Amino acid sequence: MSTPESQNPSASDLTTDDASSVSKSAAKKAAKKAAKEAKKETPAAAAPSLAVDEQDPLASNYGEVPLVELQSKTAEDVSHWTEVGHLTNALENQSVLIRGRAQTIRAVGNKMSFVVVRERGFTVQCVVTVQPDTVSRQMVKYVAGLSRESIIDVEGVVSVPSVEIKGTTQQVEVQVRKLYCVSRAAVLPINIEDAARSDVEIEKALQAGETLVRVNQDTRLNNRVLDLRTPANQGIFRIQSQVGNIFRQFLISEGFFEIHSPKLIAGSSEGGAAVFKLNYKGQEACLAQSPQLHKQMAICGDFGRIFEIGPVFRAEDSFTHRHLCEFTGLDVEMEIKRHYSEVMDVVGPLFVAMFDSLNKNCAKELEAVARQYPFQPLKYLPETLRLTFEEGVQMLKEAGVEVDPFGDLNTETERKLGQLVLEKYGTEFYILHRYPLAVRPFYTMPCHDNPAYSNSFDVFIRGEEIISGGQRVHVPELLTERAQALGIDVKTISTYMDSFRYGAPPHGGFGVGLERVVMLFCGLNNIRKTSLFPRDPLRLAP
Amino acid sequence: MSTPESQNPSASDLTTDDASSVSKSAAKKAAKKAAKEAKKETPAAAAPSLAVDEQDPLASNYGEVPLVELQSKTAEDVSHWTEVGHLTNALENQSVLIRGRAQTIRAVGNKMSFVVVRERGFTVQCVVTVQPDTVSRQMVKYVAGLSRESIIDVEGVVSVPSVEIKGTTQQVEVQVRKLYCVSRAAVLPINIEDAARSDVEIEKALQAGETLVRVNQDTRLNNRVLDLRTPANQGIFRIQSQVGNIFRQFLISEGFFEIHSPKLIAGSSEGGAAVFKLNYKGQEACLAQSPQLHKQMAICGDFGRIFEIGPVFRAEDSFTHRHLCEFTGLDVEMEIKRHYSEVMDVVGPLFVAMFDSLNKNCAKELEAVARQYPFQPLKYLPETLRLTFEEGVQMLKEAGVEVDPFGDLNTETERKLGQLVLEKYGTEFYILHRYPLAVRPFYTMPCHDNPAYSNSFDVFIRGEEIISGGQRVHVPELLTERAQALGIDVKTISTYMDSFRYGAPPHGGFGVGLERVVMLFCGLNNIRKTSLFPRDPLRLAP
Repeated sequence: MSTPESQNPSASDLTTDDASSVSKSAAKKAAKKAAKEAKKETPAAAAPSLAVDEQDPLASNYGEVPLVELQSKTAEDVSHWTEVGHLTNALENQSVLIRGRAQTIRAVGNKMSFVVVRERGFTVQCVVTVQPDTVSRQMVKYVAGLSRESIIDVEGVVSVPSVEIKGTTQQVEVQVRKLYCVSRAAVLPINIEDAARSDVEIEKALQAGETLVRVNQDTRLNNRVLDLRTPANQGIFRIQSQVGNIFRQFLISEGFFEIHSPKLIAGSSEGGAAVFKLNYKGQEACLAQSPQLHKQMAICGDFGRIFEIGPVFRAEDSFTHRHLCEFTGLDVEMEIKRHYSEVMDVVGPLFVAMFDSLNKNCAKELEAVARQYPFQPLKYLPETLRLTFEEGVQMLKEAGVEVDPFGDLNTETERKLGQLVLEKYGTEFYILHRYPLAVRPFYTMPCHDNPAYSNSFDVFIRGEEIISGGQRVHVPELLTERAQALGIDVKTISTYMDSFRYGAPPHGGFGVGLERVVMLFCGLNNIRKTSLFPRDPLRLAP
Repeated sequence: MSTPESQNPSASDLTTDDASSVSKSAAKKAAKKAAKEAKKETPAAAAPSLAVDEQDPLASNYGEVPLVELQSKTAEDVSHWTEVGHLTNALENQSVLIRGRAQTIRAVGNKMSFVVVRERGFTVQCVVTVQPDTVSRQMVKYVAGLSRESIIDVEGVVSVPSVEIKGTTQQVEVQVRKLYCVSRAAVLPINIEDAARSDVEIEKALQAGETLVRVNQDTRLNNRVLDLRTPANQGIFRIQSQVGNIFRQFLISEGFFEIHSPKLIAGSSEGGAAVFKLNYKGQEACLAQSPQLHKQMAICGDFGRIFEIGPVFRAEDSFTHRHLCEFTGLDVEMEIKRHYSEVMDVVGPLFVAMFDSLNKNCAKELEAVARQYPFQPLKYLPETLRLTFEEGVQMLKEAGVEVDPFGDLNTETERKLGQLVLEKYGTEFYILHRYPLAVRPFYTMPCHDNPAYSNSFDVFIRGEEIISGGQRVHVPELLTERAQALGIDVKTISTYMDSFRYGAPPHGGFGVGLERVVMLFCGLNNIRKTSLFPRDPLRLAP
């Protein structure tokens, strides 16, 4: 069946919402206006909708769901509900019950309304046509008067149109018999279609003389709850979940187990000023900048091989695309027998397994991200490339880029080296090891043959660092010496220092930022896109 | 082969360590003494051990491992190492290489030494006897001079003694050919055998006229890195890891995914004074008391079914066996179609699956815990019992315990009700639902038929509450009304309140404390036993 929506999937919907915003201030105004209107509105639950015509003999087929229905209905089998994403040709002529959001609503005359219903990123077109025994004119009018993003329950029969439907993810329609509003949305400060639009689409339209709304990053974050509803964001956070899951499952299969170390600690974990301080029952406390100290202490407690996934806090004033004040750390620590390469032997296969699994199991999610933010799949080798820092410096030198052989690489030289490695080895994922000791934390084990270097490594994706790791100093005297050399006040971390006095196994480990992994795997340009509710020096809300 | 250790596994070892402590102050003194001695000691790695006789032609078979060996040795296959836990009869007459701690060291004359080597809770006896081509008298002496808890590498041949070995977990011995010390332990403030001893053993010995060392809770926590090495603690934290793992895997299989919500927030999440405050770049911030607000906001962002595992912070001055200032929250939030029983439909099967899996997959760990802290396995039903709060009050009443029908239960009445339920229904795990509204947080959905009750529940293990959950208010006007009624300053949580204005699906969820689950499943008497590095009003270290 051919319908207005399938013939003309988007044109008339693109600029219809007068609250759509192109700038931060416009968004704020819109948000205020929307909030105001929301307050004026009759509560969906407190009173019956004015739109239901009490004289209509078919009035029971539509209207607002009274709150009491959602508070007290006897428990029932929920299996007769169908997910929008499961609506396929196989269900043709069957009656279904779905719940989702009214993404777009269109009336065609006074006998027909169309509602695109969206549930978790999947969309289906629902057709409301006047029918003698089920659908009244009043019902069609009621549906046309629904607000976008309202939650609705729809009962109807699945039909398969003769032409392809272009504006929805599902290739069937629902011929509506009953439709109830569960939660009515106020006027939106940003429109989901606007927030879901790619820059490519905006540019294309511009060339055709049409101006489409572009929602900027700050406006998105100010209205994060709406922004999260876009298909790209639905994908990003499912991918994020999968990254954590593979990380854990891989490590568990390798004999690791999970710990939870304290975030409230007495001394700073990594030193430096970038630490949030607070009053802890009269004592000064810090928020852990990483689980470094306690994961090493757990190793001294004979935990053998451990990992942790948890928040880490950095009070840095970094206003970059890749820094946050709070992010999710993926941390690993393990005993080693002889050499820090044993740690790299875990890192490589772990991430290759992760990339393989994401490509295989998150194909739909990656596609949803790529539709809005186009990117090339990550190039990586089955066996992860390892280069020494010296080799990296040499490659840069040969390419005409001089860097301090005992200093750190900066963002620009890291990116350049990433390009060179890609050209020479065909991979965007590699390990750079034997870093200069001077640029590593105090707990890093020096190299024996040249104490200007250390038994440590960084790992890069698409020219950006995502992992730091290495062997730790397990000899208490050397640890004290290194801490003092770097100006650390060892008194503040005395319980950590003392942990190594009662027999300490040689060990190493690494730390990864979850948000960075997702950002770089998906080729995104800003870490705020992969943090659910990002925290940076200017943002503590929502 | 019969040996002194296997004939007489423990008697002479029980009180030999003069630094063993029975009280906090003694432990502190011992710790100071140990630290002092550790500082005086020659660093294991910086100089060769004085104990190695340079004139000994077999001197290369023992001694300290130079640090350089652990810094720079070329990467090698680590598969020729054997874990202590894998040493069985099947390896008889084979040469093995192990690393572990010297748990006990005993010399018998000057021709023989015994070392019990422990790795991750597993122990094996290693025999060092003078042999013409491998083991010198000097080596036997060197071994006898090792300090307890030092990390050692042992190369030797597996033998099967003709009589049962009683003091170790493994039923074989290792006839030592080479033995090197990797990390030498200073004098210990607490002895691992003392820390691993059960009260039952201490009482038994006392009846036989012998006084054994009892290490109290605070001494343990002050020396947590040593305390963690006991078999019970090795078990507890592996069980804890498994609880988190089953929680995740079960929920993922039910269509949930994992989120990471911010811990730094502008307003308090649960209200009340029990919140840690800090300065966030000039703004006042709180540490989240739970992920409540943001997990609900994620639901408003169409995330459908989500969970989170992460730290939660409570600044309460609670000095009980079951409260911590920082613990690990297991949180769930989900859309519901009609009724809060849909949430209970997840809780019951989730925990039954968890208990089943723990009993099946953590048998060794549970055994290790029970050896030190004897407990009866948890009694639970395949289908979780549900009682209404009213029914619970009635059961208490019939047992002669009068409680306020619209107040909360206290620890004592909860425990009493647990007993009654166990007697009547044969389960120590059950759900109590339809709680009085007055004792629940502002976001709890009232019951429609009696607004003195709410669509909420608690879950109990062994008479103690471990889970709180219920349906949330998704109607913005009602939410504001409820917040104001409970004296919440809605301005501080405005971004949360606003999330419900743009269409909010009916939803519910629950929160669990990870440490409480492990504590109560194992019948432990203090939550500090199941927190890796516990934080309470008096403890911010180690």
